[in-house]
Amino acid sequence: MITIVVGTNRKNSVSRQVADYYKSILDNKGATSQVVDLVDLPGDFPTSALYEENGNNSDFNTIREKVQSAEKLVFVVPEYNGSFPGVLKAFIDGLKYPEGLRDKKSALIGLSSGVQGGVFAMSHLTDIFNYLGMHVLALKPKLAGIEQNFSEGKVTNNLYNQLLNDQAEKLISF
Amino acid sequence: MITIVVGTNRKNSVSRQVADYYKSILDNKGATSQVVDLVDLPGDFPTSALYEENGNNSDFNTIREKVQSAEKLVFVVPEYNGSFPGVLKAFIDGLKYPEGLRDKKSALIGLSSGVQGGVFAMSHLTDIFNYLGMHVLALKPKLAGIEQNFSEGKVTNNLYNQLLNDQAEKLISF
Amino acid sequence: MITIVVGTNRKNSVSRQVADYYKSILDNKGATSQVVDLVDLPGDFPTSALYEENGNNSDFNTIREKVQSAEKLVFVVPEYNGSFPGVLKAFIDGLKYPEGLRDKKSALIGLSSGVQGGVFAMSHLTDIFNYLGMHVLALKPKLAGIEQNFSEGKVTNNLYNQLLNDQAEKLISF
Amino acid sequence: MITIVVGTNRKNSVSRQVADYYKSILDNKGATSQVVDLVDLPGDFPTSALYEENGNNSDFNTIREKVQSAEKLVFVVPEYNGSFPGVLKAFIDGLKYPEGLRDKKSALIGLSSGVQGGVFAMSHLTDIFNYLGMHVLALKPKLAGIEQNFSEGKVTNNLYNQLLNDQAEKLISF
Repeated sequence: MITIVVGTNRKNSVSRQVADYYKSILDNKGATSQVVDLVDLPGDFPTSALYEENGNNSDFNTIREKVQSAEKLVFVVPEYNGSFPGVLKAFIDGLKYPEGLRDKKSALIGLSSGVQGGVFAMSHLTDIFNYLGMHVLALKPKLAGIEQNFSEGKVTNNLYNQLLNDQAEKLISF
Repeated sequence: MITIVVGTNRKNSVSRQVADYYKSILDNKGATSQVVDLVDLPGDFPTSALYEENGNNSDFNTIREKVQSAEKLVFVVPEYNGSFPGVLKAFIDGLKYPEGLRDKKSALIGLSSGVQGGVFAMSHLTDIFNYLGMHVLALKPKLAGIEQNFSEGKVTNNLYNQLLNDQAEKLISF
Repeated sequence: MITIVVGTNRKNSVSRQVADYYKSILDNKGATSQVVDLVDLPGDFPTSALYEENGNNSDFNTIREKVQSAEKLVFVVPEYNGSFPGVLKAFIDGLKYPEGLRDKKSALIGLSSGVQGGVFAMSHLTDIFNYLGMHVLALKPKLAGIEQNFSEGKVTNNLYNQLLNDQAEKLISF
Repeated sequence: MITIVVGTNRKNSVSRQVADYYKSILDNKGATSQVVDLVDLPGDFPTSALYEENGNNSDFNTIREKVQSAEKLVFVVPEYNGSFPGVLKAFIDGLKYPEGLRDKKSALIGLSSGVQGGVFAMSHLTDIFNYLGMHVLALKPKLAGIEQNFSEGKVTNNLYNQLLNDQAEKLISF
């Protein structure tokens, strides 16, 4: 089972749409996957699911279990303020430690409205994921200008599609 | 006015104690400062103060105003999962953009129980702060093994004290 | 005196042309500057000017002295293999330590043929320069697609020119 | 074949000794490996093997071929000025592009006299290697205080040995 994480809790995010699209790519290649959208996190998780409350919020636990039980993970990460959304890192801070992500394999996709494509988001996450013992595929597509390259549920840019398909195949055999 | 930000919402954090200690250093040098502790953030701010709700949570706004109105900022940042706390970045994601941090000057201090001293936390934050147009002092003390080097409200390690005092002086004249 | 460093030893580099252009910006603002081009490094400096040979190569010393004696520095850095040129870092490895760059102030400009604009080159250099005690301006223009935006010795992109002028003014008052 | 790269051209480096020790670990696990020491690079390679001279220096080519022909790579990297040695990056700048490192698998080990253990060296290299399409194992041992933890050709610190052995096993099955 591959779990695809929507890396923001924004409602109706483009990241969610890209995650659904990525699931269709994995479906086509015969790999089973599910989407976890951080929009479903309980709103008060910073005070009800972290630190001394780690593991005590059952709604939070339902979501984190879909991440912790996966063998492989995909993170669709929009660029917020030059890096990943804080909520994504706060979610990671609420995982079981150290077994939450250790020895899993992951693929990262960056999104941005602007030209950077989430390049720092992916670099910073690679530092964090490697620190936690999770492997990260070298190929991390940066989907800059996502609004101009996504329409009706599909990535419309040929290069982006090539990169996403290449990455999905590498993840399956990772 | 210098605002010192406690970079976690953990209750009774060591970071808070280090922030109070840093305030006493600034006091001794004649610089006016205040401490803002992210423990005071409303627990549900990820759903009530970000994105389309940006600016709509008055409790959140009270805290962010102490940051946005400062000319200089100090961030006391514990290492969580190899980087900064997600809650700190989520707080940054709730600031006014782009004027929230632009052209301010900042000093970063990293804390850790382990040996890294928050080295990635500070590097990642520097990427983010520079992206947002805020300057960061080169000297970023890394207080590794903080529990063994802090007692009764004071940093007890001579090197750490030297670094914190040097940094405070540089910040005042930055 | 501001020293502008051409961050590659490639002959007839675009970086050199951008450095000369940057000098004209500083000239117009009344700031005195000089250009140092790493193409002038002795070809064998990795064996004649580093480690136990540090300080022993007079040709190398002539160049490094223009860097070490400056109060402020500008680095024009092309993207090579996703970061800065190795030769630039090898040059830095041959500076006097720790006084070579400590407490200086610097401005970074990234160049690339592709779309990244040297974003990692600048982030990695910021880590290194801050480690060495040199301050780095938050604003680091990323001149992506430089070949399409530079002609007859001048940057032709209006946004790029705005950023370079803003940065130059900030550096002068840094 | 696994190629172990000594990431500096310093003579008689500790990195070389650690590379030889790592080879003995791989030998014990039945994996074939060879050590490439950058001390063997021709001293003038920055002017004779890069850019328009790429591929034209036969001594340089002999060394790079041992790297380019390997399926898996180990990099033993000392911390110089808060990151990797510039000479290592300059060597990378002289590889064939893009096929030089693409799709290979790698393991990184950081060394330092001080307390950081080359943490930035490994983070920066991960950015670069991933950019070039080479996978990097999540586990990157940081051998801080190497002089106190290495004696007579052997790492003497039990934790370090555990990490190196774990990494070597992961690399073999990567």
